[in-house]
Amino acid sequence: MTSESLLELLTALQEGKATPDEVLKRLIHLPYEDLDFAKIDHHRPLRTGMPEVIYGAGKTDEQVMEIFAQMAAKGGNVLATRVSSDAAAAVIGKFPAASHHAIARTLTLVQEKRPARPGMLAVLCAGTSDLPVAEEAAITAELMGNTVTRIYDVGVAGLHRLLAQREVLAEAKVIIVCAGMEGALPTVVAGLVRAPVIAVPTSVGYGASFGGIAALLGMLNSCAPNIAVVNIENGFGAACFATSILAVKET
Amino acid sequence: MTSESLLELLTALQEGKATPDEVLKRLIHLPYEDLDFAKIDHHRPLRTGMPEVIYGAGKTDEQVMEIFAQMAAKGGNVLATRVSSDAAAAVIGKFPAASHHAIARTLTLVQEKRPARPGMLAVLCAGTSDLPVAEEAAITAELMGNTVTRIYDVGVAGLHRLLAQREVLAEAKVIIVCAGMEGALPTVVAGLVRAPVIAVPTSVGYGASFGGIAALLGMLNSCAPNIAVVNIENGFGAACFATSILAVKET
Amino acid sequence: MTSESLLELLTALQEGKATPDEVLKRLIHLPYEDLDFAKIDHHRPLRTGMPEVIYGAGKTDEQVMEIFAQMAAKGGNVLATRVSSDAAAAVIGKFPAASHHAIARTLTLVQEKRPARPGMLAVLCAGTSDLPVAEEAAITAELMGNTVTRIYDVGVAGLHRLLAQREVLAEAKVIIVCAGMEGALPTVVAGLVRAPVIAVPTSVGYGASFGGIAALLGMLNSCAPNIAVVNIENGFGAACFATSILAVKET
Amino acid sequence: MTSESLLELLTALQEGKATPDEVLKRLIHLPYEDLDFAKIDHHRPLRTGMPEVIYGAGKTDEQVMEIFAQMAAKGGNVLATRVSSDAAAAVIGKFPAASHHAIARTLTLVQEKRPARPGMLAVLCAGTSDLPVAEEAAITAELMGNTVTRIYDVGVAGLHRLLAQREVLAEAKVIIVCAGMEGALPTVVAGLVRAPVIAVPTSVGYGASFGGIAALLGMLNSCAPNIAVVNIENGFGAACFATSILAVKET
Amino acid sequence: MTSESLLELLTALQEGKATPDEVLKRLIHLPYEDLDFAKIDHHRPLRTGMPEVIYGAGKTDEQVMEIFAQMAAKGGNVLATRVSSDAAAAVIGKFPAASHHAIARTLTLVQEKRPARPGMLAVLCAGTSDLPVAEEAAITAELMGNTVTRIYDVGVAGLHRLLAQREVLAEAKVIIVCAGMEGALPTVVAGLVRAPVIAVPTSVGYGASFGGIAALLGMLNSCAPNIAVVNIENGFGAACFATSILAVKET
Amino acid sequence: MTSESLLELLTALQEGKATPDEVLKRLIHLPYEDLDFAKIDHHRPLRTGMPEVIYGAGKTDEQVMEIFAQMAAKGGNVLATRVSSDAAAAVIGKFPAASHHAIARTLTLVQEKRPARPGMLAVLCAGTSDLPVAEEAAITAELMGNTVTRIYDVGVAGLHRLLAQREVLAEAKVIIVCAGMEGALPTVVAGLVRAPVIAVPTSVGYGASFGGIAALLGMLNSCAPNIAVVNIENGFGAACFATSILAVKET
Amino acid sequence: MTSESLLELLTALQEGKATPDEVLKRLIHLPYEDLDFAKIDHHRPLRTGMPEVIYGAGKTDEQVMEIFAQMAAKGGNVLATRVSSDAAAAVIGKFPAASHHAIARTLTLVQEKRPARPGMLAVLCAGTSDLPVAEEAAITAELMGNTVTRIYDVGVAGLHRLLAQREVLAEAKVIIVCAGMEGALPTVVAGLVRAPVIAVPTSVGYGASFGGIAALLGMLNSCAPNIAVVNIENGFGAACFATSILAVKET
Amino acid sequence: MTSESLLELLTALQEGKATPDEVLKRLIHLPYEDLDFAKIDHHRPLRTGMPEVIYGAGKTDEQVMEIFAQMAAKGGNVLATRVSSDAAAAVIGKFPAASHHAIARTLTLVQEKRPARPGMLAVLCAGTSDLPVAEEAAITAELMGNTVTRIYDVGVAGLHRLLAQREVLAEAKVIIVCAGMEGALPTVVAGLVRAPVIAVPTSVGYGASFGGIAALLGMLNSCAPNIAVVNIENGFGAACFATSILAVKET
Repeated sequence: MTSESLLELLTALQEGKATPDEVLKRLIHLPYEDLDFAKIDHHRPLRTGMPEVIYGAGKTDEQVMEIFAQMAAKGGNVLATRVSSDAAAAVIGKFPAASHHAIARTLTLVQEKRPARPGMLAVLCAGTSDLPVAEEAAITAELMGNTVTRIYDVGVAGLHRLLAQREVLAEAKVIIVCAGMEGALPTVVAGLVRAPVIAVPTSVGYGASFGGIAALLGMLNSCAPNIAVVNIENGFGAACFATSILAVKET
Repeated sequence: MTSESLLELLTALQEGKATPDEVLKRLIHLPYEDLDFAKIDHHRPLRTGMPEVIYGAGKTDEQVMEIFAQMAAKGGNVLATRVSSDAAAAVIGKFPAASHHAIARTLTLVQEKRPARPGMLAVLCAGTSDLPVAEEAAITAELMGNTVTRIYDVGVAGLHRLLAQREVLAEAKVIIVCAGMEGALPTVVAGLVRAPVIAVPTSVGYGASFGGIAALLGMLNSCAPNIAVVNIENGFGAACFATSILAVKET
Repeated sequence: MTSESLLELLTALQEGKATPDEVLKRLIHLPYEDLDFAKIDHHRPLRTGMPEVIYGAGKTDEQVMEIFAQMAAKGGNVLATRVSSDAAAAVIGKFPAASHHAIARTLTLVQEKRPARPGMLAVLCAGTSDLPVAEEAAITAELMGNTVTRIYDVGVAGLHRLLAQREVLAEAKVIIVCAGMEGALPTVVAGLVRAPVIAVPTSVGYGASFGGIAALLGMLNSCAPNIAVVNIENGFGAACFATSILAVKET
Repeated sequence: MTSESLLELLTALQEGKATPDEVLKRLIHLPYEDLDFAKIDHHRPLRTGMPEVIYGAGKTDEQVMEIFAQMAAKGGNVLATRVSSDAAAAVIGKFPAASHHAIARTLTLVQEKRPARPGMLAVLCAGTSDLPVAEEAAITAELMGNTVTRIYDVGVAGLHRLLAQREVLAEAKVIIVCAGMEGALPTVVAGLVRAPVIAVPTSVGYGASFGGIAALLGMLNSCAPNIAVVNIENGFGAACFATSILAVKET
Repeated sequence: MTSESLLELLTALQEGKATPDEVLKRLIHLPYEDLDFAKIDHHRPLRTGMPEVIYGAGKTDEQVMEIFAQMAAKGGNVLATRVSSDAAAAVIGKFPAASHHAIARTLTLVQEKRPARPGMLAVLCAGTSDLPVAEEAAITAELMGNTVTRIYDVGVAGLHRLLAQREVLAEAKVIIVCAGMEGALPTVVAGLVRAPVIAVPTSVGYGASFGGIAALLGMLNSCAPNIAVVNIENGFGAACFATSILAVKET
Repeated sequence: MTSESLLELLTALQEGKATPDEVLKRLIHLPYEDLDFAKIDHHRPLRTGMPEVIYGAGKTDEQVMEIFAQMAAKGGNVLATRVSSDAAAAVIGKFPAASHHAIARTLTLVQEKRPARPGMLAVLCAGTSDLPVAEEAAITAELMGNTVTRIYDVGVAGLHRLLAQREVLAEAKVIIVCAGMEGALPTVVAGLVRAPVIAVPTSVGYGASFGGIAALLGMLNSCAPNIAVVNIENGFGAACFATSILAVKET
Repeated sequence: MTSESLLELLTALQEGKATPDEVLKRLIHLPYEDLDFAKIDHHRPLRTGMPEVIYGAGKTDEQVMEIFAQMAAKGGNVLATRVSSDAAAAVIGKFPAASHHAIARTLTLVQEKRPARPGMLAVLCAGTSDLPVAEEAAITAELMGNTVTRIYDVGVAGLHRLLAQREVLAEAKVIIVCAGMEGALPTVVAGLVRAPVIAVPTSVGYGASFGGIAALLGMLNSCAPNIAVVNIENGFGAACFATSILAVKET
Repeated sequence: MTSESLLELLTALQEGKATPDEVLKRLIHLPYEDLDFAKIDHHRPLRTGMPEVIYGAGKTDEQVMEIFAQMAAKGGNVLATRVSSDAAAAVIGKFPAASHHAIARTLTLVQEKRPARPGMLAVLCAGTSDLPVAEEAAITAELMGNTVTRIYDVGVAGLHRLLAQREVLAEAKVIIVCAGMEGALPTVVAGLVRAPVIAVPTSVGYGASFGGIAALLGMLNSCAPNIAVVNIENGFGAACFATSILAVKET
């Protein structure tokens, strides 16, 4: 039932063509939602700065191209994650304003500029192999309007590299930490700061790393209290979650 | 090396009793930290509102009693989690001002009042069996200075109970959602709000719930982007993480 | 918003005290559900023959007793599963009309008789150790108004015992099969009949049975097409699911 | 021993060429089955509407082609699942009457029309990536004589899309729900209806989805009582199981 | 249908009271088995030397006592495994001829003597903690009529103890090897002999032994070709399987 | 120390050129084995009928070709398992007397004929997808001098096919049963016979079959006592183990 | 064959009572080991400083007492691990010279003093709950003649506590690090030193720590190269391994 | 803050341009490390004999080439592990002095010769398929200045091959043992020697070897006390750890 037909129903009541009981009976069976709810939902991306998103894994280059074009036509920002180089080249060919972030395996198209959200977000990773996940997080967060500081290659087996960044860490409002193997970096970072730390396990490692399970378990069992965890390699989700935290300041 | 002896060293330099090179050589071997670092750390609980915490699991009633007394003597707030009824009774006997929250299995002693932190924190759980975890989160969060709204028994198999709370959910700045079994509640909640949702798997269930693993996996794989997860039954950690988010507003 | 106040709102519209637009605006913000929805929900047990249910595991004897009394007061049928002998004795002491099914670890109280649903439900189990689960299923199904035939101790290592029951199996409209260890019985049964077979893994076994995981996996991987599986030891759920199937005939 | 030779044996008895004891002795050693049993089995597909089925995974295009031709020659309906595009093209080339359902990865050949079985079957999926499994279920169910309503892309992170379909759901006699990731959709659906819900985990997801294990566990641990589960990605099996339920109405 | 009524049917045919076609029709629907099949089955234990067996785990002392008495009354040998000391004492009190093997946690009652089966069976174990499983195997095998040689405490970390037994090993026709922890003993033994080696994982160990899984995996992955494995702690099954091998010589 | 030099040592003693003490001292440090031991070992294949074996998985076609040629040069029988079609073609090109068994993925070269070992070995499999494993077992067993009867496609979802083979099964001295998916066939077979049954899990299946783990667990937890299990897909090992059993008859 | 009888054999050869060929034939069948080998083995504990060891888990107090007395009678040092308080009290009652280390759950009896092995061994643990494992390691190492420095409660969430110990760590020749939960401490320590680090996972933690699996995986996947791991809670093994390293200096 | 600017600060103090308190205040905020720390770190490889290392897995040939060139330019030794044949050929083309070890999949470039470290390191493996891991360990250890003895193809199913190497084993100061499948070799070796044994699981095997998990568990559960374990296939790590042990002798 659309709000239009709902209006008709109410008008019928007003005009005496229906009784309150009849209307009540119909309203009780009113579906949970109505079109206005959906309409609001339709407007959400524009209001929140959340871009349209394509998850490229498992899609053909043609599918990525087609969906990207559809989304771009809506006029907002577009983000495509896990895209192949070929798909990226094809999209850039058609949308020269789009940017391909090769390491992050992402494509972005900025059609709406807006002032940066206050509060710095730091993105850390343990080793260079964690870069694709860290960059996916950083690129996503930037497209969502955040100010991002990258602190890479600060694994716990060489603590001095991490400790050298203590002042920057202290300024961050939220910290995303990507690590594979034993996944200890988020715990060590969380012990140095008070900001919330979002831990992202990566699949970096071999043997008993089990594609990121070792890092995931390490992060879930962290002895630091200011840590929460997202799915293995979910850099995109970490950025969304960080944005939802930084948006708390605005509310 | 204490800051005192460091001062002596510098004074010796000032007084010409040591050369800059000699002092430099000693400073290079200065341990990473010094006592002043520890002193700052010592002051941290009072400044951040973080209480002293005892994890009662695996400790005898006597040990809980003894550690509680030591912590209480410091003058700050004290929180003991996973305490038995017997240990609780013993502590209350000696500290009548302490409170025992039986369902949450926690003891609290408030010796420092302070104004509530702005921003409402909602704590949800799916079923009554999830209450111990949800209450551990709620009690912990309250002791840390947050305003908590409890929304219990709103499991996804009866959606209308959850949907009836939509307005309250919309006001929450951060939401903690505890659920066992299939662990779907955090995902459904996250689809209804923009605030960050902290998912806490509980061990409620049997058979293939594997003591909370099913719920944990369900939450890690959530299709909603504004979710992060803590360890199974870690209500305490969820409250700490939520506090670290709400404290972002203050900075 | 209750249906009463909703009626008031509509009456106000009818009486010209409100405009359709004003009412529409309020209705759009109407919470998903209202009390009438809950009222319908409240009536559901009586209409569907679904009893009030208490899951006794993890509850004290006193809690079981108290909840049982509350449910019995509503006048419908009551089912308590996973109850201890002591809890059962206490309930029977207060509700002499209740029955304790010791092997099934269940309590039932029939306060509403109703004609049996057409269609026979067969409940099978592989060995005597599977009886608690099979009986939980059978007792539950009977309380929900079904006609149940029990076929026990027909494990696949002695096929002739099962084959001797072929005629009874052929008459069943739905079949619940409980088995632990290698969990092969549902597959063999499903190869002999056309009716839907609901497989219930039990935790019977030791070593690599892993508390029912071996049986669960065996059933999920069945080479027969007319099988679906419920959680380990979930005799109650199997009976509910079977009832939902037999109720299809009624609709 | 064929029924022919059995007849000879009985005739010999009738004609006095054998004694009852001699015949009895032979009959006791009669193998469990005889050819007539097989003959009945041969007739089964025609009577039940069950098509001949080829599982294409792991078979070469040539093997699929050859087996398809053999089955088609029997005159009944034929279903091939998990077939490659190449195999499909080859089969269509030879059997122009066959249909290739690309998303479902299936081939169907209808050689026997028959009236639709009463009772609507709804097939739902959470996201577009679940389509191959959902379509395998839908196509299979249709070929088996059922009326299927497809409700796709109604994941729980956007509840309004699902709630908009409540009336259709209420009309379904059986519901198949396919979902990957956290696998919460079947639970939410089962809370909205009374019909039996068949949950099909898909391998959609990454990281800790473990190829569908997270969804499988979520479904097995559902807090709704009218759910049963089939193997990961087993759309075919779900359709068979649903058909066995709808056939209950006919018996 | 009993063989008696089958005889009646055949006699009716012989006497011209029934036609072959009528009898054929009934026979086609003859259930898979008949009472004569069961009767043969009833005789099996006496012929094969297989004792009546009670699996004591999960049974009360009273249940063990009662079943033991029923089985003893049949006149054959009786074996009860996994029995408590109390149950054993109770049984011995009533059946003084029964023997309690405390380490093996078994009770045996020999009521039928018979000549030993030719062919020596060696039972080995790695450490003294494996004794309960090894003795369960040895006692079971002896009761089934085999000649058993025990070779205990010959773990692979002290090879000389095992190598000192090479001559005895060379004489064994079948070898049962029980080991926990890393489970390497069966592999080393199998490299020294040509006889079939039955590997029995035990739950001896801690931490990453996972209750016998490490030993089980070690045995399944043995690089020796003359090994097969039974379930964790299944000493009884190993003895049965060994007996089935030694019985091959008799056939 | 070779037996030759050992002989020299002893001769020196005999001739008075060494004292018993000197010889004793050298003998105490004699390595565990000497060349004669190895020599016996060298002769083993010829005496036991065990062929030279190449495990082709992970080897290049060239490596398979080269090792095959080396082994063939020794004059005994040669078996290569898990070989590609290309490797097979290359070997056949050079050794026209060799045979390629495409389904079994094996190559055999018979250079030594010998009388068949008494005792029939039955090899069963559940479905046609299990054929590679079953044929690997059958071909290996035949090359080792056994008489093999193949009984294929007798899965438990259509019991009549298996039951039709009861007489053949009863004649087998040892039975190898290969099955994937739920792995129930070995249990059902073991309930019909007294011979030892060697269960071989295959990786046939999908989803929760986990590459054969479901079948493996099903077989380890079999409720039949005359079953033992080998590694997933280890058709070769099953044949070796079966041979070691049948060889018991000869000793 | 004992060395005595071997001497007789050689003397027989010397005296012309046997030929070299006869002796050679017997020697070829000489078992792998002889008594002299065992005799050397018998002396090993005294020479290496390895005490006699009792693993108390799963043993009754009486068994511990009895074995302890047997070992003490040999005159060397005795170590009992995982002993209950009652068993400890009983042993101390009889052996007043023995020491009970309650936290380490061990008993030691020193009957042989010997000079400390050069090289300091540091034993670290992350939290106080790890003490039983750390103390088991420390007590064992001390009894084996090593000099041990304990550094406890230096978890990675508060790095300054660990960093304050850098100079002590730099002096250690070998370091044992015990940690539960995420198990990150060994990695951080290994990044600060060059000495070999032996990582010991403990079962400290809950939920997804899975009894030490998370810590075990974290340690196996360490990004530091100078780490190796022992079994969960295997403090004893870590001490033995450390001793074997420090003994390298002596050789 | 560099040591240079630190020197300036101290000189300012010496010259009276700053007070001790001012300097103290700045020093308290001195970051944990300064450039001098890094400089020391920079010198570490030269002093310890640790080469520069490239982990080639997941890197393109170009990346390997580029990093190799950068590292070679520093003048020390260079090691690249897990490199493809193509990458190796490219590097050799540019650095003719580099060596490609094809089986070990490593590249080495020796630019600094230094005397061998005392103490022999034995590297063992069970089968030829374990060679890549064993050779990675051996090549790495040699480049780090150790003397390596290779003992290959000594699996436990043919003990005489291993026992023949007892004298060499007795001379080794540290032993690395690589094995897949059941992983029993390290345990057997550790029972024969007193030196520390470093166990390296390999992924050799199939089915229930689970890519090396079976071997890993076998090694972690070893009944020998002088064993520690590194990650699956971590030959490089084993060599580093062995070097850290042999370096203990030097300190």
